[in-house]
Amino acid sequence: MLNELSAVAVAKAIAAGELTSEAVTAACLERIATREPEVLAWAHIDADAALADARARDGEAPRGPLHGVPVGFKDVIETFDMPTAYGSAIYPGHQPVADAACVGLIRAAGGVVLGKTVTTEFAFVNPAETRNPHNLDYSPGGSSSGSAAAVADMMVPLALGTQTGGSTIRPASFCGVAGYKPTIGHFSYAGVKLLARSLDTLGAMARTVADFALLRAALTGAPAEIAPRTSPPTLAICRTPWWDRADPASHEAVELAAIAFADAGAEVREVVLPDLFAGLEPANKTIMMYEGRRALAHEYNAHEDKLSDRLKAQMATGAVTDYDTYLDAIDCAQKCRAAFAEFMQGLDALITPAAPGEAPLGRESTGDATFNRPWTTMGTPCLTLPRHTGPNGLPVGVQLNGGFAKDDDLLAVGLWAEKALG
Amino acid sequence: MLNELSAVAVAKAIAAGELTSEAVTAACLERIATREPEVLAWAHIDADAALADARARDGEAPRGPLHGVPVGFKDVIETFDMPTAYGSAIYPGHQPVADAACVGLIRAAGGVVLGKTVTTEFAFVNPAETRNPHNLDYSPGGSSSGSAAAVADMMVPLALGTQTGGSTIRPASFCGVAGYKPTIGHFSYAGVKLLARSLDTLGAMARTVADFALLRAALTGAPAEIAPRTSPPTLAICRTPWWDRADPASHEAVELAAIAFADAGAEVREVVLPDLFAGLEPANKTIMMYEGRRALAHEYNAHEDKLSDRLKAQMATGAVTDYDTYLDAIDCAQKCRAAFAEFMQGLDALITPAAPGEAPLGRESTGDATFNRPWTTMGTPCLTLPRHTGPNGLPVGVQLNGGFAKDDDLLAVGLWAEKALG
Repeated sequence: MLNELSAVAVAKAIAAGELTSEAVTAACLERIATREPEVLAWAHIDADAALADARARDGEAPRGPLHGVPVGFKDVIETFDMPTAYGSAIYPGHQPVADAACVGLIRAAGGVVLGKTVTTEFAFVNPAETRNPHNLDYSPGGSSSGSAAAVADMMVPLALGTQTGGSTIRPASFCGVAGYKPTIGHFSYAGVKLLARSLDTLGAMARTVADFALLRAALTGAPAEIAPRTSPPTLAICRTPWWDRADPASHEAVELAAIAFADAGAEVREVVLPDLFAGLEPANKTIMMYEGRRALAHEYNAHEDKLSDRLKAQMATGAVTDYDTYLDAIDCAQKCRAAFAEFMQGLDALITPAAPGEAPLGRESTGDATFNRPWTTMGTPCLTLPRHTGPNGLPVGVQLNGGFAKDDDLLAVGLWAEKALG
Repeated sequence: MLNELSAVAVAKAIAAGELTSEAVTAACLERIATREPEVLAWAHIDADAALADARARDGEAPRGPLHGVPVGFKDVIETFDMPTAYGSAIYPGHQPVADAACVGLIRAAGGVVLGKTVTTEFAFVNPAETRNPHNLDYSPGGSSSGSAAAVADMMVPLALGTQTGGSTIRPASFCGVAGYKPTIGHFSYAGVKLLARSLDTLGAMARTVADFALLRAALTGAPAEIAPRTSPPTLAICRTPWWDRADPASHEAVELAAIAFADAGAEVREVVLPDLFAGLEPANKTIMMYEGRRALAHEYNAHEDKLSDRLKAQMATGAVTDYDTYLDAIDCAQKCRAAFAEFMQGLDALITPAAPGEAPLGRESTGDATFNRPWTTMGTPCLTLPRHTGPNGLPVGVQLNGGFAKDDDLLAVGLWAEKALG
């Protein structure tokens, strides 16, 4: 099925003249037409516009690495030709005047903007209506709920999300797709609604690690293909100070992955983070609430009645967090980032839980970001790979963590690890 | 004259019932009506709206530290009730849907949004029409041209700017006002047009250092008053690797300030930056062009004909900067930030040039940002104080530089230094 192809497969087939962008886009739209009433992954779809865009790509010389590939964008990412509502009751139908940088760069690289995916309110905690495509009774995770569900449900090969706590890696884990949060700042955040500048990171969901390299080429100018490793990596299980908060399913995901990696030739150690790092998880919450409450100043001034009670309850802590407490959290982030560079000497990646376990039942919560917050706070790159399944038959990812700005190395490890996991 | 009062003086007089916000706002508007045809500092003014806002503040309980104080906002900062054109021919009359966080927070603190000040195109290099109020034949500097000129010309006590290279400190120096660029991230950038996320910093111009504390209280929750130093500071002249690029007027500004500080009891040393820091100036350019070209992806896709030739010529280097070169520049910034924390041990602030000299003649250039780029790249806080005058009778600032997140200390040094300079 064309809608089940990876971004790399689509791009290659189009470049080889074996496939049209129109055919792939039509297959994605057909899947969406069938499944969207149950999955509720999309905030905006304009099938005619997407098909017209795909035909235009088919009729011209290749623009770049994503030529003809349909891409979904979380609805906190602004688009000049589609409404962007930030998941908020304040902004239904809001039409931005410009594309976010990532949208513009993906268009310039030949990508087809398939539509906007559902986000929680301002990419924060209040769950959206989207369902987990593996079992509609369960959460897809959040805040990039629609992007994770759409990729998992074969509606689109590639979708962009954001992560301020755990909003890319966690839903990717819950929905059983590959997830990538690059080093903070590497993918331009211009035109994406800010929640907490010190943490906000653009990320993506896809079928394979190789797809992230295509996306990264479009956004950064890095090579579109990952240079494969010439030897197995040196890895380390890192249970983190929060290991007890994870279910057996996530413990197993980490431990079984480590066994598979060792079987494939990797050296697998076990490491313990220095005590300093225990501060990263609370620092993430402190920074998010402090900066988030301020980023939403206008919404509080002019539309407080249209903010959810859930958002307001959490953000209230940000209003009373004093400046020195905030500075201490920022200082913790900086110190840990520097210490982590030392810590990772001689290691290609850590193996950690991507989430505490399977997706939560119902739509009361998008799940716990504990295992994502530390890395988001340091701004270091993370991947999650989908292989394990938990007791409810739902996916459980395993996370790989690299050093600051060591995305080249982490993606190469990810490519290797995908094969090792089989 | 009411329009010549500092923000602190205005806030205090209003709080004491000795002055109305309406009277101050009217005085500012009157000054603007007289001088704006020559100075051209404002992109948008709505006198009736500002007066109505001021009257509303006069009729209610004090909201916060800026209650009743008129504030100008650089026109890259979005306002829900005033157009925001980013200094670009693409967006004349563009009306954003929300206030930037800083605008919302200043309104919540009682500030009156007086209007939008002229920015260069996207806060980048192409000079705007604004003139230096000290001599209309000279540049006010940029990119926060209108904010600097408006404060200098007594049109408004306080105005916000941004700095990605030297866009706050340099125009403040050229226009003879106090300038403050806080530690990166401390003042929320949400709702401000991004140019280069790794560098973009919200800053301000005012009459006194004490005014920055009021602003900072509104934006961060820090105290509205700076705790005065109990003893003179330990300072160090730092000529930087670029000293030769400065005119005698800037050399004098630094050296005379150092003498005045020593006379007032400060210990004044001389320090030399480690070689590593020579990379910060080129790193600033690399990061700005690389990130800036990507941030403007939509404008290139959809409106390239409306971008200035000057912008396109400079940004072209960003399109061909490869990813590894960019990463090297980011790495330099991180390493220097860490090394600078060590370097500043035992020092309260450095004394450095704020600009290479007086403002340039004509409107061909907004001046050279060499002496601003290194600190912007590290994200460390800077102040410029206006006391010196150059051979053309134009102001020349002296810059004080503090350690990362040491804004409390730097502002206290600034308050002390203002008195020492007399």
